[in-house]
Amino acid sequence: MIVLDGKKTAQDLKEEIKETVAAIKKSGKRAPHLAAVLVGNDGASLTYVGSKVRSCDYVGFDSTLIRLEESTTEEALLKQIAELNQNQDLDGYIVQLPLPKHIDEEKILLAIDPTKDVDGFHPSNFGRMALEMDAFIPATPFGIMELLERYKIETAGKHCVVVGRSHIVGRPISILLSQKGPAGNATVTLAHSRTQQLSELTKTADIIVMALGIPEFLTTSMVKEGVTIIDVGITRVADAAHPKGYVIKGDVAYAEVAQKAAAITPVPGGVGPMTIAMLLKNTLLAYQRKG
Amino acid sequence: MIVLDGKKTAQDLKEEIKETVAAIKKSGKRAPHLAAVLVGNDGASLTYVGSKVRSCDYVGFDSTLIRLEESTTEEALLKQIAELNQNQDLDGYIVQLPLPKHIDEEKILLAIDPTKDVDGFHPSNFGRMALEMDAFIPATPFGIMELLERYKIETAGKHCVVVGRSHIVGRPISILLSQKGPAGNATVTLAHSRTQQLSELTKTADIIVMALGIPEFLTTSMVKEGVTIIDVGITRVADAAHPKGYVIKGDVAYAEVAQKAAAITPVPGGVGPMTIAMLLKNTLLAYQRKG
Repeated sequence: MIVLDGKKTAQDLKEEIKETVAAIKKSGKRAPHLAAVLVGNDGASLTYVGSKVRSCDYVGFDSTLIRLEESTTEEALLKQIAELNQNQDLDGYIVQLPLPKHIDEEKILLAIDPTKDVDGFHPSNFGRMALEMDAFIPATPFGIMELLERYKIETAGKHCVVVGRSHIVGRPISILLSQKGPAGNATVTLAHSRTQQLSELTKTADIIVMALGIPEFLTTSMVKEGVTIIDVGITRVADAAHPKGYVIKGDVAYAEVAQKAAAITPVPGGVGPMTIAMLLKNTLLAYQRKG
Repeated sequence: MIVLDGKKTAQDLKEEIKETVAAIKKSGKRAPHLAAVLVGNDGASLTYVGSKVRSCDYVGFDSTLIRLEESTTEEALLKQIAELNQNQDLDGYIVQLPLPKHIDEEKILLAIDPTKDVDGFHPSNFGRMALEMDAFIPATPFGIMELLERYKIETAGKHCVVVGRSHIVGRPISILLSQKGPAGNATVTLAHSRTQQLSELTKTADIIVMALGIPEFLTTSMVKEGVTIIDVGITRVADAAHPKGYVIKGDVAYAEVAQKAAAITPVPGGVGPMTIAMLLKNTLLAYQRKG
């Protein structure tokens, strides 16, 4: 059984990006530049954004953190976005979600210049991805594709079941796995909350991508011997015995499913660490596409 | 067994649009306006465009046919498109494909204002559709959804197998069927040329959408009793016995599969006639969205 080590793979990727950036700087050019906009003081968002900024520093990117008050108006945020769109020295930026309730997230998303949308959430990027044009692919599905490719997991002609139809994970990964190209050409079934007899379906799968958000939902009786498991779930489950008061659980009952699987991502340390690495990769792509 | 009569359904739709347009005109407003750009003299393209213009006349739309020489440069076509984008009295337009070899279709497609892209081929529309925002849905998948809805075919929780992953049929219909909403919530498997053991898969399907372009590919041994069949294939097969020298065949061996099916689209007269009706529907939507 192979553990698909996202932590190590993400680190490898960061080292590669770091080398590329060093070569860019050595040639006398400016470094790639990522900005992050954070509205308000949400604890988890602060942690995520902080981690993104530190990763930029690590690989040698320039980074800018723009912090706005919780009370920022939609109009003021749109003005900020217009400035970022016009900034020639900026390759890409993200607007950390969720936004305060009084701001329309869709309106903000649509205001982002798609060529700087390194989160890949703008419909123009989504459409370009689905139509196999150059695009920014959202970090989580992009990270899954990278993991499968680096571990040489055969996907062509395999039956892949994706569980969960979210816009940022289930839907895009179901598209990517069934396209031509590396880690593609799979026969993909997209399952979701309305799917009947899910375990009959997962039992036929060569590859299962769990993106449901229900801790330890997938159990050993639901999979066949030799399956490859990608677990996107990250849920905090209260645990008084743990110093933090909680433990992180994936959508897969890891201990039992791992015994039947040919390959599996752990949680934490699987898909999670790949996401920041892919954000860096998208920023580098944005830089390179500007020429 | 129910025959899903696309010819009749398309006619019903046209009558509904015609009534809506009559009411619009009666209120003193201008009619919806569709333009079609045709480059060159391809016989099939002339037929299609002619049919679209006649349908506009029938429902009371204004229509404009712009015919350009086969030798038209890419630059000249882009200039024409810029004019159409700026024309305030025009709600939508299509650029009939295929274009002459010396013109880059992707470049042309990307130049079309997405709010006038009633073919729904622009990546921005594709992404908006996939992300469940207001969009123009390409005519063929849109027509399939309309047929399923009008014939009240239950899709929620059903297993639907789509065969073929083209950008304009297989891919979008696989997305639409698995989204929330009318004729949605299906568990969808997208199969294609690299799929192994296709007949094992189709035999489990409650609904099969064939969009492969191989005449009479789907036979009775590949389906289960009570299946619903949507046949998107339209292939001319040489037939000396026929006055035209050919007959039109779908991807389904109709005579035998119809005996096992609960519902099936004929070819011709199934999905085909729906496409022009949905183009009219998209044009009406473009008109209404302009307010």
